Amino acid sequence: MLSQIGMVAPLSGVGGLIFAGILYGVMARKGTGTDRMREIGQEINTGAMAFLKAEYTILAGFVALVAGLLFWKFDGPTAMSFVAGALASAIAGWLGMMAATKANVRTAAAAKEQGEGAALLVAFQGGAVMGLAVAALGLIGLGALYYFFIGSPEGVETISGFSMGASSIALFSRVGGGIFTKAADVGSDLVGKVEAGIPEDDPRNPGVIADNVGDNVGDVAGMGADIFESYVGAMVAGITLAATMSTEMMTQLTGSADGAMTLMGLPLLLSTIGLVCSVVGILGMGAFKSLDPSKALTAATVVASVLFLGAAYYATNALGISMGVYWAILIGSIAGLVIGKATEFYTSASPVHRVMKASLTGPATNIISGIAVGLESCAIPMIAIAAAIGLSYDQAGLYGIALAAVGMLATVGVTMSVDAYGPIADNAGGISEMSGLGPEVRKITDGLDALGNTTAAIGKGFAIGSAALTALALFAAYGTAVDKVRIAAGSERLVMDITDPKVVMGLLLGATVVLICAALTMTSVGRAAGQMVEEIRRQFREIPGLLAGTGKPDTRRCVEISTRAALKEMILPGVIAVISPVAVGYLIGAAALGGMLAGSTLTGVVLALLMSNAGGAWDNAKKYIEKGELEGQKKGGEAHKAAVTGDTVGDPFKDTTGPAMNILIKLMSIVALILAPLVAMI
Amino acid sequence: MLSQIGMVAPLSGVGGLIFAGILYGVMARKGTGTDRMREIGQEINTGAMAFLKAEYTILAGFVALVAGLLFWKFDGPTAMSFVAGALASAIAGWLGMMAATKANVRTAAAAKEQGEGAALLVAFQGGAVMGLAVAALGLIGLGALYYFFIGSPEGVETISGFSMGASSIALFSRVGGGIFTKAADVGSDLVGKVEAGIPEDDPRNPGVIADNVGDNVGDVAGMGADIFESYVGAMVAGITLAATMSTEMMTQLTGSADGAMTLMGLPLLLSTIGLVCSVVGILGMGAFKSLDPSKALTAATVVASVLFLGAAYYATNALGISMGVYWAILIGSIAGLVIGKATEFYTSASPVHRVMKASLTGPATNIISGIAVGLESCAIPMIAIAAAIGLSYDQAGLYGIALAAVGMLATVGVTMSVDAYGPIADNAGGISEMSGLGPEVRKITDGLDALGNTTAAIGKGFAIGSAALTALALFAAYGTAVDKVRIAAGSERLVMDITDPKVVMGLLLGATVVLICAALTMTSVGRAAGQMVEEIRRQFREIPGLLAGTGKPDTRRCVEISTRAALKEMILPGVIAVISPVAVGYLIGAAALGGMLAGSTLTGVVLALLMSNAGGAWDNAKKYIEKGELEGQKKGGEAHKAAVTGDTVGDPFKDTTGPAMNILIKLMSIVALILAPLVAMI
Repeated sequence: MLSQIGMVAPLSGVGGLIFAGILYGVMARKGTGTDRMREIGQEINTGAMAFLKAEYTILAGFVALVAGLLFWKFDGPTAMSFVAGALASAIAGWLGMMAATKANVRTAAAAKEQGEGAALLVAFQGGAVMGLAVAALGLIGLGALYYFFIGSPEGVETISGFSMGASSIALFSRVGGGIFTKAADVGSDLVGKVEAGIPEDDPRNPGVIADNVGDNVGDVAGMGADIFESYVGAMVAGITLAATMSTEMMTQLTGSADGAMTLMGLPLLLSTIGLVCSVVGILGMGAFKSLDPSKALTAATVVASVLFLGAAYYATNALGISMGVYWAILIGSIAGLVIGKATEFYTSASPVHRVMKASLTGPATNIISGIAVGLESCAIPMIAIAAAIGLSYDQAGLYGIALAAVGMLATVGVTMSVDAYGPIADNAGGISEMSGLGPEVRKITDGLDALGNTTAAIGKGFAIGSAALTALALFAAYGTAVDKVRIAAGSERLVMDITDPKVVMGLLLGATVVLICAALTMTSVGRAAGQMVEEIRRQFREIPGLLAGTGKPDTRRCVEISTRAALKEMILPGVIAVISPVAVGYLIGAAALGGMLAGSTLTGVVLALLMSNAGGAWDNAKKYIEKGELEGQKKGGEAHKAAVTGDTVGDPFKDTTGPAMNILIKLMSIVALILAPLVAMI
Repeated sequence: MLSQIGMVAPLSGVGGLIFAGILYGVMARKGTGTDRMREIGQEINTGAMAFLKAEYTILAGFVALVAGLLFWKFDGPTAMSFVAGALASAIAGWLGMMAATKANVRTAAAAKEQGEGAALLVAFQGGAVMGLAVAALGLIGLGALYYFFIGSPEGVETISGFSMGASSIALFSRVGGGIFTKAADVGSDLVGKVEAGIPEDDPRNPGVIADNVGDNVGDVAGMGADIFESYVGAMVAGITLAATMSTEMMTQLTGSADGAMTLMGLPLLLSTIGLVCSVVGILGMGAFKSLDPSKALTAATVVASVLFLGAAYYATNALGISMGVYWAILIGSIAGLVIGKATEFYTSASPVHRVMKASLTGPATNIISGIAVGLESCAIPMIAIAAAIGLSYDQAGLYGIALAAVGMLATVGVTMSVDAYGPIADNAGGISEMSGLGPEVRKITDGLDALGNTTAAIGKGFAIGSAALTALALFAAYGTAVDKVRIAAGSERLVMDITDPKVVMGLLLGATVVLICAALTMTSVGRAAGQMVEEIRRQFREIPGLLAGTGKPDTRRCVEISTRAALKEMILPGVIAVISPVAVGYLIGAAALGGMLAGSTLTGVVLALLMSNAGGAWDNAKKYIEKGELEGQKKGGEAHKAAVTGDTVGDPFKDTTGPAMNILIKLMSIVALILAPLVAMI
């Protein structure tokens, strides 16, 4: 079975793509509503594609440069593998955006014409194209590389290039996308809601299309690239650790000293199984759509997960692999669940009520309580990650940690679909508002949008958890890759003792890089939003009749501003993230680089959890006040104003800087893994 | 020379105490101004002493309990050493508070009667009592233990108890004090400034005395206990590392294989020299007082530092100790300087202007830019710490790291004096306001107070830097202490490899403990401030004529509320900080405990820097707007209101949670060091 995995994985990936294509076709044939709706939908689609085009143009240069460097320092296959990883992620992002920006207007139309269940299904199908594309392209790319380059454990280094390619796209999509979306959001809110006094999503606001485009750029393409990076990174770490495993461990896990190829193939096999199970879950939505939307999305996820865990049990048994490996997979899945649930709790339950009540005494207490909630919310996920690491290592060594990550991510086809559903529902709401579809339709889209906020929060928790586990697995792979070179050179294994001052220096410098990038991305949003504010003010000033509704806003110009700002602002943090591991590795050595990865991962995970969850809590505290849950307070009152302050602070927290941390820690880890052979003896 | 250090250090400590007593006598004989001033001064003094009494009563029980545990698990000397450390810190805090609460009213009187120079001198002399008490009691206590218990490297474990005793007091003083001061500050501002519309420091506000008491409790006693803990911890780490040093390293550093007693004595000798140099610097203030106040304080610090570095050079040479050790001392001093200057920059220069300008677009952008400044401000100090560790290790091994910390802290007598000057000047301003001393006097005290804000910011940076270096030195001592037991048991040295999952678990759990304690302390301030708000509202409602100025507020009741809240709220974080290393050490083992220390130190340093500097930047952004530095904006305008929000968020950041991090990381390190023999084989 596993000897063919290099064929099976890409073929099932192609199958997944075909299924995604069918879903896309079904979805694209749905009604698009009124002319006005079509027009808005078209504007969003054009804007999103314009961003992707600009992004991919810059990326092409970047990818060519890095591929050249890899070819020079390593070899052709590594460079090719890098290009393949970048291409696969870019194509997945493009497909997902195409689908999402077509599904939004169709969701609004379905809500208008057929009601909630149909609207839910359209939005979910749109999201599922992204989810399936991520899983399918990961399997096609990594599977093909496996097939062509990995005949033996020795050839394994090639595939890290694929993971680094994925990381590069993720950097542009997620960090750039995060800046894009918040510059548009904050900028249009500041002028529209505050200065011009028009509601959110009002078509007179020139920035509102950019805001809608931003939802797709940040939350569909950005999130997709982030998850793709984890998905691929977890498999690469698993394959690398299997290839460098000691004979004792190998015998323990497979009952034979030459089980390397079995263990190397397993991550691909599991992900293939996960893709099939995801397809089943996605198909199930046709039946679940009559349920309450929240239950329907949960049902699709649960069906896929349960099927996957059953099939994985069968597969590991059939392959004669130790049950310890299966437990590691199970542990990873459970950890993902725990982190998702903890995130949901901190962004919707009693902690949000604390933030809401703190709004009664003004913006300062709202902010303080939100940050306290953010700090507190780190505890359960971090303990879950620690437990997953300890337990999965107990069961199957370092390989177990990578397999826990693979297990967490295997059903990405369906989890990512649920994630991408959110921004589609959000956009559908915006389109209903802008086209004046009336309160009945608006009620359906509002309901779907609110659910999307919850799934987005859970998805963010899941993205952080999987990024952390993937980064740690890559870090373990880095350690074994360094040792491989050292042993081959007749040298001792590298000890990265935590009391070694070089390791401590690495820890401190790793944290420093993360903090600098966090500061840069926060500042970027402010700067980009400022440019957006000026442009929107200019349009209100110069375009006759714009506020009266007789003039037409130049929405394209706003999309351009966000695009330009996003792509410009992401360069510095990107360069720092790539250069700093190289500098530390060459200047202080392999042990310091190990410390750097630990420091950046730890600090990055803390900031990601803190910022995402505080942001989510602020967002919902504001929404709860709007819904009238704070006695005696309503929209526009003092407590609401305080809560709006918190929500605005939370915007770059949860949608720019927090998510950027996921990318950063994985990117630094994969750069280190690739560097390993070059710095191993330093 | 060094064979007598166990006598010389305590004797010079006694000399330092006598000098502090003389300073106190000189200061206490100064004029106390009007009856009204004396009355207010008396109230502050009574309130502060009431807090200390309540705190020390609870502490006595805590100290007895822990001493009993230490006696049971270890031996009499360790338990005694613990009690001595707690006593020494408590006495230093008591002396410093006595002096500070007497100096404040005398500073105001000197400003009224003799002008700026005289007022500066009184405030500085008041602070110097705290500075000298910290240094002197550290030397007396640690020196005496050295004299009685340490005849050989084997007896060295006893003295960790002293450091743990100091940590326990620091926990109560700094964490409890931080909650006290901000509960009083935020509570009285919320009712007084916002609801009743009376200015800050208005005598009609029942909470204003508690606010003034809080300055002393948090910034004099709390800061003193924090610095005392670092001062003692650095020496303990140095002595422990000298006692467990390898013969090669010993020969390299002293030219002889049995130089252990020389290297063990050196930290005490250096601190003794530092005390003498501090006395010279403090005496110099008599001459410097005619300079610009800022220059005068700098001059006193520089004189002491230069003298110390010269004398330390002579001493290491004369003792035949390698120059590498001297370079480590110098590196520590420079790192302290760099961290202080970086802190000054981020809390007074262009970053503050960024925050100020961001206030133009409302509270949300003010908060975002403040947090970005806080994140950014971590970089230079963390790179400085990393460089100090790398360079001092290069020069003198792990011992070099401890000596860098000793070097940074040796002239604590004068640096702590400058620190304690700040709250005294702040209180003097409050007393001038409350007694209606008029604009001329107020101008002098305002100037001294503004300078105090800068010295406080630098002092906070210094406290964080020294806490980080001390924690890392204690961490290194923990590693060697574990190895000592393992080698004695015929086992291998402990490898705390950063890719070992147990170490990674420790890293994650260490960070988690820090995050939980940060969340708890932030929430505590909010809760305690809420109680204060209710009490002040009650008094305005129930005491006839209070707002009109004919009724008298019950200030004592407010002090009681802050006291009770502070002491209650600090228990949970304190217990978590002490229990968690014990739990991790026993349940996962010595390697995980090492990881935990690294994780808590890294996360703690990041949060401390981020929170202190963001808080300082917000504070000054508000002050700059009040001074009219933001064109078109004045006090009470929209931008000022936005800046006030930032300042209020910054209050618990910079005065409660940030400083609590210093204590936490040292406390966890010292608990681990003491635990080392018990968990070494786990």
